[in-house]
Amino acid sequence: MEERKGGVATLDPRELAKRHPAEVAEVLQELPEKEAVKLLRELYKLRAAADSLEEMDPDEAAELLEELPEREATAILSRMEPDDAADVLEELPRAEVDEILDRLREINPRKAEILKRLLEYPPDTAGGLMSPEFVALPADITCQEAIERLRRIAQEAENIYYTYVVDQEGRLLGVIALRDLVLSPPDTKLREIMLTDVVTLRPEMSAEEVAREFDKYGYLALPVVDKDGVLLGIVTVDDILDVITEEATEDMYKMANVPREERVDTPWYESLKMRLPWLYFNLFTAFIAASVPAAFESLISRIAVLAVFMPIIAGQGGNTGMQTVTIVTRGIALGEVPKGRGLWILIKEFFLGLLNGLAIGVTTGAVAYAWKRNPYLGLVVFLAMMGNMVIGSVTGALIPLTLRALRLDPALASSIFLTTFTDTLGFFLLLGLGYVFRGYL
Amino acid sequence: MEERKGGVATLDPRELAKRHPAEVAEVLQELPEKEAVKLLRELYKLRAAADSLEEMDPDEAAELLEELPEREATAILSRMEPDDAADVLEELPRAEVDEILDRLREINPRKAEILKRLLEYPPDTAGGLMSPEFVALPADITCQEAIERLRRIAQEAENIYYTYVVDQEGRLLGVIALRDLVLSPPDTKLREIMLTDVVTLRPEMSAEEVAREFDKYGYLALPVVDKDGVLLGIVTVDDILDVITEEATEDMYKMANVPREERVDTPWYESLKMRLPWLYFNLFTAFIAASVPAAFESLISRIAVLAVFMPIIAGQGGNTGMQTVTIVTRGIALGEVPKGRGLWILIKEFFLGLLNGLAIGVTTGAVAYAWKRNPYLGLVVFLAMMGNMVIGSVTGALIPLTLRALRLDPALASSIFLTTFTDTLGFFLLLGLGYVFRGYL
Repeated sequence: MEERKGGVATLDPRELAKRHPAEVAEVLQELPEKEAVKLLRELYKLRAAADSLEEMDPDEAAELLEELPEREATAILSRMEPDDAADVLEELPRAEVDEILDRLREINPRKAEILKRLLEYPPDTAGGLMSPEFVALPADITCQEAIERLRRIAQEAENIYYTYVVDQEGRLLGVIALRDLVLSPPDTKLREIMLTDVVTLRPEMSAEEVAREFDKYGYLALPVVDKDGVLLGIVTVDDILDVITEEATEDMYKMANVPREERVDTPWYESLKMRLPWLYFNLFTAFIAASVPAAFESLISRIAVLAVFMPIIAGQGGNTGMQTVTIVTRGIALGEVPKGRGLWILIKEFFLGLLNGLAIGVTTGAVAYAWKRNPYLGLVVFLAMMGNMVIGSVTGALIPLTLRALRLDPALASSIFLTTFTDTLGFFLLLGLGYVFRGYL
Repeated sequence: MEERKGGVATLDPRELAKRHPAEVAEVLQELPEKEAVKLLRELYKLRAAADSLEEMDPDEAAELLEELPEREATAILSRMEPDDAADVLEELPRAEVDEILDRLREINPRKAEILKRLLEYPPDTAGGLMSPEFVALPADITCQEAIERLRRIAQEAENIYYTYVVDQEGRLLGVIALRDLVLSPPDTKLREIMLTDVVTLRPEMSAEEVAREFDKYGYLALPVVDKDGVLLGIVTVDDILDVITEEATEDMYKMANVPREERVDTPWYESLKMRLPWLYFNLFTAFIAASVPAAFESLISRIAVLAVFMPIIAGQGGNTGMQTVTIVTRGIALGEVPKGRGLWILIKEFFLGLLNGLAIGVTTGAVAYAWKRNPYLGLVVFLAMMGNMVIGSVTGALIPLTLRALRLDPALASSIFLTTFTDTLGFFLLLGLGYVFRGYL
């Protein structure tokens, strides 16, 4: 057995073609585009291009394919697993896709038809994730016969670990794991050993929902059926690993208002172009919040100590709110928040905000009093802090729950909305109370 | 085939025992503890308890087991997959674990030995994740013989989709997928069809590293070997799904300073106890930042407009920094930041901060000028904003990179450190410049 090294040093296409396609994909992704295209064409001659492209990010694979002569690009796509090929085609301009499909129809009409159908489903649904290359057999053959049929079709099927049993109309009747097929007496009928209580997916289910089913049941593949129960395809667990990682990244990015396409190695001008709109949006909300101290300018010039406590009170409201936003948003993403649960969460967060606010408010008020020896300042700071922490807690739950009720992504810019609330209302509470007690401060 | 309903309505143990264990686990997790324990004991009599506990969170499974008579708890643990049983035992007090292992040794000494060895590895390493129940066969038997052996041991093995070929000392020689075993001519020797270029894990590898290998290669299971190449166990992809989800949750939580154990349904007094220390830590850092405006109190009372721009400048530094923190932290978690890359990232973020700061600074400075018709105010605001955005960008990269260099978690409280910097230095830049230009404001 060979020890795996840190990377693949050689660029000899013949050597590379023997490595695992995932490693070849890494090499292709790290090379400058021109060299990557050259290498890909060499790999194409060695019939190793399709496997490597399957392992690349679809958008990067599409960029390389666009640079190839159309004949070679079509040939490579025709050799890829249909679900991976469809992901790559999604990244290409519409006109180019039609051209490739026309060309593909000449060399492999069945594949062209499969790809056309897959492209009808959005890429982040069960329909877009599924592979149409599954094993479907009738119920009345024996295990022995089934294994013989598997031998013949194994090359075409993406995953033979589950055999699906269907009726003449293609409706799913049951499923048999390869292990049970192999380990049962050879003359057993499939009908006798198939499991009929099958977990199924619908093509319109979102990638997150699909991921949750895999997480819950721990299967290697799940079948996708239409409303009549006809088997359309299978989603395999390795496609889901990517989805889970990708979804988690997206949620983190959305909460921190990072553009979804940015990665560590994004060129600086791209980063600039993508981040700046978010920062301008942030600035706009900061101006909204700052309109409060602007309105209280003369109060601040008389009682400057209020300006010292402004950022503390606004910040703690934002901090406590971010805790709530994160827990609720992640809970929704993991499917742990049933629909009727919203009110319960709001009530819980209200009391948490009140109690946390009491503790933090008393501490902060005490510091204010100790510093200026003014009990009214302590009272104003205490009340503003407690109030803003209740606002942060409740708003932190309300924002993701509302976004979900509106069928939007709960993570979408939650933190900007939250801090706009906690800054604006935090300033208002402190300066408003300061105004009321201005005679004593 | 049966349609799946929203939940499992029935609580009849006999009916439940026929459902998928993942669904039974959901019922157990939703019931009040007393009723869950009662149900679990019924399931135990029906021999359905072990399968359901395997699907539960280990800490919740441990809580239930603690309430059972020790004899029943031991019997259930002995029927669980060893890797899942070990995860549950990790959650119990040391003394109780020893007692259970002693008892287990009487009824199933082999299982007790396996569990004892698994418990020696930390739970978040390959060693802690692996199952010792794999299929290992010699190289010189035929596929036919191998399948017959599989029939005999299939009940014990967690995953028979890969057969591992080992020498007499247990060293890993190669691997054969079940599909190849089934589809090859029956009299082929294993040696002829085994793959020798095997991707292997070491027991001390972290769960994240293991997840990355699965993500890269897309296998269903990976073997764990010691330094001599002896096969110790296998990690299966379904264990990794949990790990990836769990790691992503943890990273999100750490960035938002949420206690790692909290979930949407955590009781309020637990939430309070867990969140409050973070909020006090936040408050402490807020006091550090507020010491700057406190020192400039008399300047603020003379030029109160500075207090209006204080939160805008501090906030934008924090926002731009959070973008950087998120991208760098996530990049490190996904293995996209090689060790030597740090300086390159810092330089990139410096220039991004400068350019973003130029754009946002000019806008904010122009607003300040337009409002008060004072070019010096515009200049002070512009300079402070640009400076703080550079600070935010660079610090946002520096914090996770430094934490990694210190072998700490890059996500650890990153946002608190960041905002402490951007608030303190943002206030200092604005008020310091305001002090320098105080004659013109």
